[in-house]
Amino acid sequence: MTHLQAQLEEWSNRTEKLQKRLREAGLQGCLVTQNVGIYYYTGAMQTGYLFVPAEGDPTYYVRRSVARAERESKVRAVELVSFRNFGEQLAADYPWLGQSASGQAKPAVGADLDVMPAQLYLRLAEAVPQVSLTDSSSLLREARSVKSAYEIDCISVAANVAADALSEGLEALKEGMTELELMAVIENAMRLRGHVGLMRMRGYNQEIMTGVVAAGEAAAEPTYFDGPAGGRGLSEAAPQSASLRPIGRGEPILIDIGCCIDGYTIDQTRTAVIGALRPELQSAYDTAVAIIRRSEQWLKPGAIPEDLYAEALRMASEAGLSKHFMGFGKDQVKFLGHGIGLEIDEWPVLARGFRSALEAGMVIAIEPKFTFPEWGVVGIENTYVVTETGYRPLTQSPERLFELP
Amino acid sequence: MTHLQAQLEEWSNRTEKLQKRLREAGLQGCLVTQNVGIYYYTGAMQTGYLFVPAEGDPTYYVRRSVARAERESKVRAVELVSFRNFGEQLAADYPWLGQSASGQAKPAVGADLDVMPAQLYLRLAEAVPQVSLTDSSSLLREARSVKSAYEIDCISVAANVAADALSEGLEALKEGMTELELMAVIENAMRLRGHVGLMRMRGYNQEIMTGVVAAGEAAAEPTYFDGPAGGRGLSEAAPQSASLRPIGRGEPILIDIGCCIDGYTIDQTRTAVIGALRPELQSAYDTAVAIIRRSEQWLKPGAIPEDLYAEALRMASEAGLSKHFMGFGKDQVKFLGHGIGLEIDEWPVLARGFRSALEAGMVIAIEPKFTFPEWGVVGIENTYVVTETGYRPLTQSPERLFELP
Repeated sequence: MTHLQAQLEEWSNRTEKLQKRLREAGLQGCLVTQNVGIYYYTGAMQTGYLFVPAEGDPTYYVRRSVARAERESKVRAVELVSFRNFGEQLAADYPWLGQSASGQAKPAVGADLDVMPAQLYLRLAEAVPQVSLTDSSSLLREARSVKSAYEIDCISVAANVAADALSEGLEALKEGMTELELMAVIENAMRLRGHVGLMRMRGYNQEIMTGVVAAGEAAAEPTYFDGPAGGRGLSEAAPQSASLRPIGRGEPILIDIGCCIDGYTIDQTRTAVIGALRPELQSAYDTAVAIIRRSEQWLKPGAIPEDLYAEALRMASEAGLSKHFMGFGKDQVKFLGHGIGLEIDEWPVLARGFRSALEAGMVIAIEPKFTFPEWGVVGIENTYVVTETGYRPLTQSPERLFELP
Repeated sequence: MTHLQAQLEEWSNRTEKLQKRLREAGLQGCLVTQNVGIYYYTGAMQTGYLFVPAEGDPTYYVRRSVARAERESKVRAVELVSFRNFGEQLAADYPWLGQSASGQAKPAVGADLDVMPAQLYLRLAEAVPQVSLTDSSSLLREARSVKSAYEIDCISVAANVAADALSEGLEALKEGMTELELMAVIENAMRLRGHVGLMRMRGYNQEIMTGVVAAGEAAAEPTYFDGPAGGRGLSEAAPQSASLRPIGRGEPILIDIGCCIDGYTIDQTRTAVIGALRPELQSAYDTAVAIIRRSEQWLKPGAIPEDLYAEALRMASEAGLSKHFMGFGKDQVKFLGHGIGLEIDEWPVLARGFRSALEAGMVIAIEPKFTFPEWGVVGIENTYVVTETGYRPLTQSPERLFELP
């Protein structure tokens, strides 16, 4: 098979998987409006709207750049003639759309309403009056949760870059340098190896730079970021991640980093210290390691995501660290790990309520961490792919507490 | 006045300006849900919802982190008790909310529907049944278009960082280095000076790294990015900005960069060349300079944004460069400049349809550029603040074509 054939097969598999879900859900099709979703189903990321019918070929209606979409898209790309008349253009391409067997209620078409702005939603309802737009966020997130071999390779490439960047960071790390200086070394290493310069996150108002590099009590500052460790950040207008605080001796240095290579992201955490950790932190770090080992034992097809979270909670409690697990006190997050791929906050989440069994091909970052408001954050994070028989780690960095002289 | 007093006055002025607009629009208040909008009106950026009543004190209902919001917010921050019962919590704080004088239709409350996801919009409609949410995107964008002295200072700080980063980039620039390598030098320089690691853009699906550094025909590749020059990018999954193309002799090197310091962004463009530009490009560059000079003549309170755009179009046409202005052919963008502040795509836009007169305090990036698909992009961009009598440039970089040996 040529590279091009492989690519076309990769993309047509994605469409077929989605179409199966659409038919099961009784939807006539799905409108994908978010750039990441469009890329996943077309291989292009130009401005426009993708319509995936429950059966038949998708069409990518492009505003700009049509030329580039035509070149890069694996599905048919056409110019969106006019947003106002989008419904007519759809009707010409899909005459059956909006026709209901019973002649009763408007047939439903799914859409990515978790990310589509309300203004666009209201305008689409007018522009495409023949159907009723319904929220298919869960369906779309589930459809992307199992990765193909191609996608797993992409994430592995990103994992290698993160490992190289961590090595460069650790080499540069010395007492008195600021969190930002350490972060800049790591970012520069990732950028020169092809990090696209941003990481994508699906949650509304959620942002991520290239992770969090933070030390001591600055790492423990609570934030809006939906993760166990936020960090002080540089400003109240960017209140997470690295700050200008100098890194001191004997304090935990949380290096929670990721990058985005060819669209795919990786996420990993290592803890470092100049000197040694105080016993309480060393013990909490050991508990984090024990939790990730236990998670690995459970990580296989058929396992229930919320069970892994519950077991981690149990182990944290057994260690007397409940209040410190995954953030401190009221600012704790309620998960142990998260799917990752084109976005860093994909499904499944290892959290209460996620009861669908794990499947081979899911890629999950597991990140047990303990927060001590006065001392900082310790923990570990690896990204794994679930295999037929268990798991394979994608993270390449050596797994240990990095104790520097 | 102490720093704290000045800050409180800054933030209460913002609220008062918004409240005046809300009353004029006949709205009982406004719900701000987007992180940047919340920061603008509270000085904090934690996850939650801000309610600004048309009269009286705003309340910031926080999900996470409440502790950090309480510390950083300039308005009252409280814990959001439950999203499902948000309407009841609002009713307790604002008993008059939703009461209509006529007893007829539900009173309207504005919201940032251009950015709020449809899913949240639909859930809010259920959670806050006493009011009808109406799109106040324009009102909110207009309210932010005139900057305070404090904000202008913030943008100036970012402008200084961008100027330093450009100097470092030009020092490092040499034949054969890749666009990405040059970009990485500039980004590292900005990051070490406090760039927060991302830049914010309001438009749906719009993203920006730290701008575009691109040379030759790679700079001219059309993209989804809503600007005159996109760039090839590193991947179809990030199809804009720097690529791995080596920079050659005699080709235009577009250095369109920005950074975000303490929340505020700057945007500037300079053109460089190793050797000399071909005469057609030199002439187009000179036309860009002539357009920016003409724009400066017109830039003052009372000027109509679309008139500046029309004049630029006229000058491009006079120079025989219509097809090349602000992108090429079908991929042209339809503006000459844009407001800038917390986001890089603020109002006003120098574009058709923007007929409200410029006011002192508006900050606008003006960026005449010419695209030649086979040769690249030339142009210039400065950020200005409109003053009582005209304008003041905020961009600090020397304004010239950088010709390197």
